[in-house]
Amino acid sequence: MDTPSIALLLTGNELMSGDTVDSNSAMIAIRLGEHGLEVGEKCTVGDDPTLLQSALARLTADYPAVIVNGGLGPTRDDLTSEVIAALSGVELIEDPDALAHVEDWCARRRIAPNPANLKQAFVPEGCELIHNPSGSALGFAIDINDCLVLTTPGVPSELEAMLPALTSHLKARIGGEARQILRLQTFGIGESSVEERIKKYADRWPSDVTLGFRAGMPQLELKLSVPSAAKLPAQKAALALLEEDFGDHILGTGSARLAEKLQSVLRDQGKTMTSAESCTGGLIASMMVREPGSSAVLGTGFVTYANEAKRDQLGVAPTTLKEHGAVSEAVVKEMLLGALQRSGANIGVAVSGIAGPGGGTEDKPVGTVWIAWGTEEDLRTHMTVVSGSRTLFQNIIAAACLDLMRRHLLELPPLPHYFARQA
Amino acid sequence: MDTPSIALLLTGNELMSGDTVDSNSAMIAIRLGEHGLEVGEKCTVGDDPTLLQSALARLTADYPAVIVNGGLGPTRDDLTSEVIAALSGVELIEDPDALAHVEDWCARRRIAPNPANLKQAFVPEGCELIHNPSGSALGFAIDINDCLVLTTPGVPSELEAMLPALTSHLKARIGGEARQILRLQTFGIGESSVEERIKKYADRWPSDVTLGFRAGMPQLELKLSVPSAAKLPAQKAALALLEEDFGDHILGTGSARLAEKLQSVLRDQGKTMTSAESCTGGLIASMMVREPGSSAVLGTGFVTYANEAKRDQLGVAPTTLKEHGAVSEAVVKEMLLGALQRSGANIGVAVSGIAGPGGGTEDKPVGTVWIAWGTEEDLRTHMTVVSGSRTLFQNIIAAACLDLMRRHLLELPPLPHYFARQA
Repeated sequence: MDTPSIALLLTGNELMSGDTVDSNSAMIAIRLGEHGLEVGEKCTVGDDPTLLQSALARLTADYPAVIVNGGLGPTRDDLTSEVIAALSGVELIEDPDALAHVEDWCARRRIAPNPANLKQAFVPEGCELIHNPSGSALGFAIDINDCLVLTTPGVPSELEAMLPALTSHLKARIGGEARQILRLQTFGIGESSVEERIKKYADRWPSDVTLGFRAGMPQLELKLSVPSAAKLPAQKAALALLEEDFGDHILGTGSARLAEKLQSVLRDQGKTMTSAESCTGGLIASMMVREPGSSAVLGTGFVTYANEAKRDQLGVAPTTLKEHGAVSEAVVKEMLLGALQRSGANIGVAVSGIAGPGGGTEDKPVGTVWIAWGTEEDLRTHMTVVSGSRTLFQNIIAAACLDLMRRHLLELPPLPHYFARQA
Repeated sequence: MDTPSIALLLTGNELMSGDTVDSNSAMIAIRLGEHGLEVGEKCTVGDDPTLLQSALARLTADYPAVIVNGGLGPTRDDLTSEVIAALSGVELIEDPDALAHVEDWCARRRIAPNPANLKQAFVPEGCELIHNPSGSALGFAIDINDCLVLTTPGVPSELEAMLPALTSHLKARIGGEARQILRLQTFGIGESSVEERIKKYADRWPSDVTLGFRAGMPQLELKLSVPSAAKLPAQKAALALLEEDFGDHILGTGSARLAEKLQSVLRDQGKTMTSAESCTGGLIASMMVREPGSSAVLGTGFVTYANEAKRDQLGVAPTTLKEHGAVSEAVVKEMLLGALQRSGANIGVAVSGIAGPGGGTEDKPVGTVWIAWGTEEDLRTHMTVVSGSRTLFQNIIAAACLDLMRRHLLELPPLPHYFARQA
């Protein structure tokens, strides 16, 4: 193999008992892959100093670098620093920078550091600290024999924040040519559909470009990967093919999110939005408010789960509710009009559905949902049935609502693939 | 350790590249745990015969049993059978039962077996087949030296269907008594605080009880584990100690969630709630609506991100907004009163804060948040500063708001640990 290969050592009783599914190693492998490095072996052991030390001894003998993940926390279960100190024959010492980090971390939380917190300031003598921007546990780099050992915390968000420092250490030590990876975020199209479509123009697809997928909820990430910077024109050609074929599904590159994209479209057009939510209970609004800068585009949202709320907060007529039921075209229309009027927003979405597990009928089974979106002058509606758990139903519907508004604003085809696959 | 410990060897390039997150090993570990067996070490390698063989040689020397997962498929990447045959010095032979299984599998799919399918009928001589009720790849059991090696397919549903056969093989060989595990869901207390507190009554802690942690967001799971049913009284005694010390943080056993717990308290008391959300943008309401049965307790929620929304939807006085600013005690009080009045709910929560990254000032840095909760007659407020990303801030605050209402309804101490650790 040409790609330099390193080892991962994961530690934690929760990884052995099955209480935690390890997603950290996938996160690390993906990031290393982008930098032309690969994971040759993963070893996972519990919080047991003997097992940990023997695994580390073996991996440091077999690989040029080892990333240790986990075991840096404040409790006595957390043994990584001790084991590394023992194996490299150095002491654990209180590092002034590490101490300052822990104290600062506690101060920002307005808590006094306890002995468990302070334990995290002790690291093997001679190591180089790796900053943890979001947690109390610092990582460090140290050499064991000729192997570079990098330690990282088990909390995924903290690990993620430390990945850039990690790859710098690794590249400085063992090199690796950067693959050029372009990530495209899409919504409303599945992996198999993309593959089927691409088959049709397989003769025009540049052979240097590898297409990868990562199914997120609710988005699908496409990964266009070329082996080196010299092949970027091929990547560009592949992108052009995808844009031509299903550009309306493409939200953007990098980590673009549906709500982020909708916010930017609204900002570009100087518009504001509102939401009137029954079965999603505030999820649509909260997805928008997750994004920094949302105050410019969403001022008011309505959570109207009960019929009384639809009536009092949105002005839905009691007769409409009575005649058509809460999950109906007539009701979501009135919900949307009420929300637009009362919020003064330019565009909005209203949704009412049966999230389950109860509440379904023969006419309207669990998963039935009515959506209204648009403006007073250009109001659209759609009914669909989504199967799956309550949570899945809510996530899919909320995402679809954001996408429907994006499509409306951009004058794209209103009913995407996921609502009308047969069409 | 008393619990017999075995090793897992996982194989597949997709596990190394990060394309697949391994959930199989958690599934295996949980099932083994129920039978009093535990996984001592997990090793994961790609589809590379050299790495696979050396890992298998090492694990069969160190453990009484090894489960190999993956590498039994029809393609030439699937190397498990070959590697095991090589290591045990036997040939791969076409097994008549295995051949019948593959032919039957193809017949049920109305396809003719191709050479790739037929490869799956070849297994190491002398092994014992393990039936795969849902796929073409059979597993098998074989001894390598004195170690029991069990092979299983990588497809999760096929693995799951084979787990009963797997545990029978293991129990027949190495025994194992069922551990008894009690899971407690808690909120508002950290791993290090729990450990610090327990130290104070370490002399009363039953020695048979192992305490484990699983940090979820936002909950912390405590796991009280005893080696056998005979030790259940010790587990009960440990639970009593925890309940005495921080029972107000305990949400329940099993998988109890904060919103689920709040819903059940509201139902017990025949009450309804509402929320008036600025910086959390509907997250509080959506957490409640995630739980089935929420229509009985939450009818109306308000997302009032803009000042105009606070005024129009909740009746917050423009002078209050002007004099105190949107993130202030006066404003959250008026938000809560408006929400209670307009929704008719019995109890509510209102929240206004600076989620960041922008919008902070010297007086009110990013992360500042005012919360009001309770009823018209018994309205409480609190200010706190939460550091971390925007998403983390929103998740923590929304969870804390649910907990504050739970505490209010149950007449528990109003300001838990996470707001006042010094106190």
